[in-house]
Amino acid sequence: MSDAYPVSNKNKVRQLNEKANYDRQTVHDILDAALVASVGFVQDGEPVVVPMIYGRKQETIYLHGARKARIIRLLEQTERACMNVTLVDGIVFARSAFNSSLNYRSATLFGRPRFVEDPAEKLIALKVISEHTMPGRWDELRDPLEKEVKMTGVVALDIDTASAKVATGMPDDEDADYAIPVWAGVLPLQSMLTKLESDDRVIDGIEPSAVVRAMQGKVI
Amino acid sequence: MSDAYPVSNKNKVRQLNEKANYDRQTVHDILDAALVASVGFVQDGEPVVVPMIYGRKQETIYLHGARKARIIRLLEQTERACMNVTLVDGIVFARSAFNSSLNYRSATLFGRPRFVEDPAEKLIALKVISEHTMPGRWDELRDPLEKEVKMTGVVALDIDTASAKVATGMPDDEDADYAIPVWAGVLPLQSMLTKLESDDRVIDGIEPSAVVRAMQGKVI
Repeated sequence: MSDAYPVSNKNKVRQLNEKANYDRQTVHDILDAALVASVGFVQDGEPVVVPMIYGRKQETIYLHGARKARIIRLLEQTERACMNVTLVDGIVFARSAFNSSLNYRSATLFGRPRFVEDPAEKLIALKVISEHTMPGRWDELRDPLEKEVKMTGVVALDIDTASAKVATGMPDDEDADYAIPVWAGVLPLQSMLTKLESDDRVIDGIEPSAVVRAMQGKVI
Repeated sequence: MSDAYPVSNKNKVRQLNEKANYDRQTVHDILDAALVASVGFVQDGEPVVVPMIYGRKQETIYLHGARKARIIRLLEQTERACMNVTLVDGIVFARSAFNSSLNYRSATLFGRPRFVEDPAEKLIALKVISEHTMPGRWDELRDPLEKEVKMTGVVALDIDTASAKVATGMPDDEDADYAIPVWAGVLPLQSMLTKLESDDRVIDGIEPSAVVRAMQGKVI
């Protein structure tokens, strides 16, 4: 498999294309870092965007929802879906409004949704999604009940093509503007998983496991 | 104007609808807190989702991009757009994978994009967008140049209808699962604007203003 996604009319980044990247690794890293994706599909000719938890297994994204949820029913029927994941990393204070912007990591992918019926793949998908959000947690929890699996709809999105766009660093101002006596720079946005808070109903003496504790302080 | 958005087939939240909210204030608060929106539209019958900076003025969302950007050209032509903003607030570790989830604030709105041609509204829109990301900054910066305004495309999205979905607090487990000796609780995700970093080319002696300094430490 090539290291990069094929560039087509669909995924080609046209604006600020010096920030564009089609490497699979860059796209995967962004997908693996974020917790929520914006999934877009067409309903009755109109666009709908829904935030969803997800997981990635190689070039397949797994999405889930209640079996009867609109998003699951629609992804089951629809020919195409688009998914974007964006992590904001900071505010870029330029010397003009025109050049002010954000620093960010963003990945967009296109694919054909495939409704997962096979119970074995469905279980794999649920584990992939769980491990994406809570690595190591799956093995600490009881097995899913048959009725829970039945109540859950799983959709696989096999990535046809994708692109990443990454903006970092300081403002890029017009030459003339560097003479303006105004401050310029970056204000980073840091997204951190802070400190575990226990549910009141945890059984006495039960502490979070090492894999759960290890998530504290993690920066996304 | 009513305090709530009308509930229709389009914006009605069906899943976990106890978390749904149609109050304008709740939707506005989420829109005002976030930095980036996922904007969905239909191109050649297929869905496309693009992350965009935005600003809100009452019931109008302003979006901008390079005048020639695909998103601006398409929003100019398209009949409908959907926009979602989601802020993740934490990971909810339940006693089963089925009940594990995220805490979040999410707002979805639907509207008809309107290409902004009027120079006066366009300038207002650019200020609204700038002030959304960097409150107070607009007045510190030089006025936009005529060519900058020309190179920028602005689209107004007048909100037809919207919904919010907010998940907070501890896991909601199956009754039987509370007896399982596994830890459960929440790991908050905190997104904070940290500490200003100056561009190397700032003129000697120029410091960030009070409004810019005041953004440090802000939690989104």
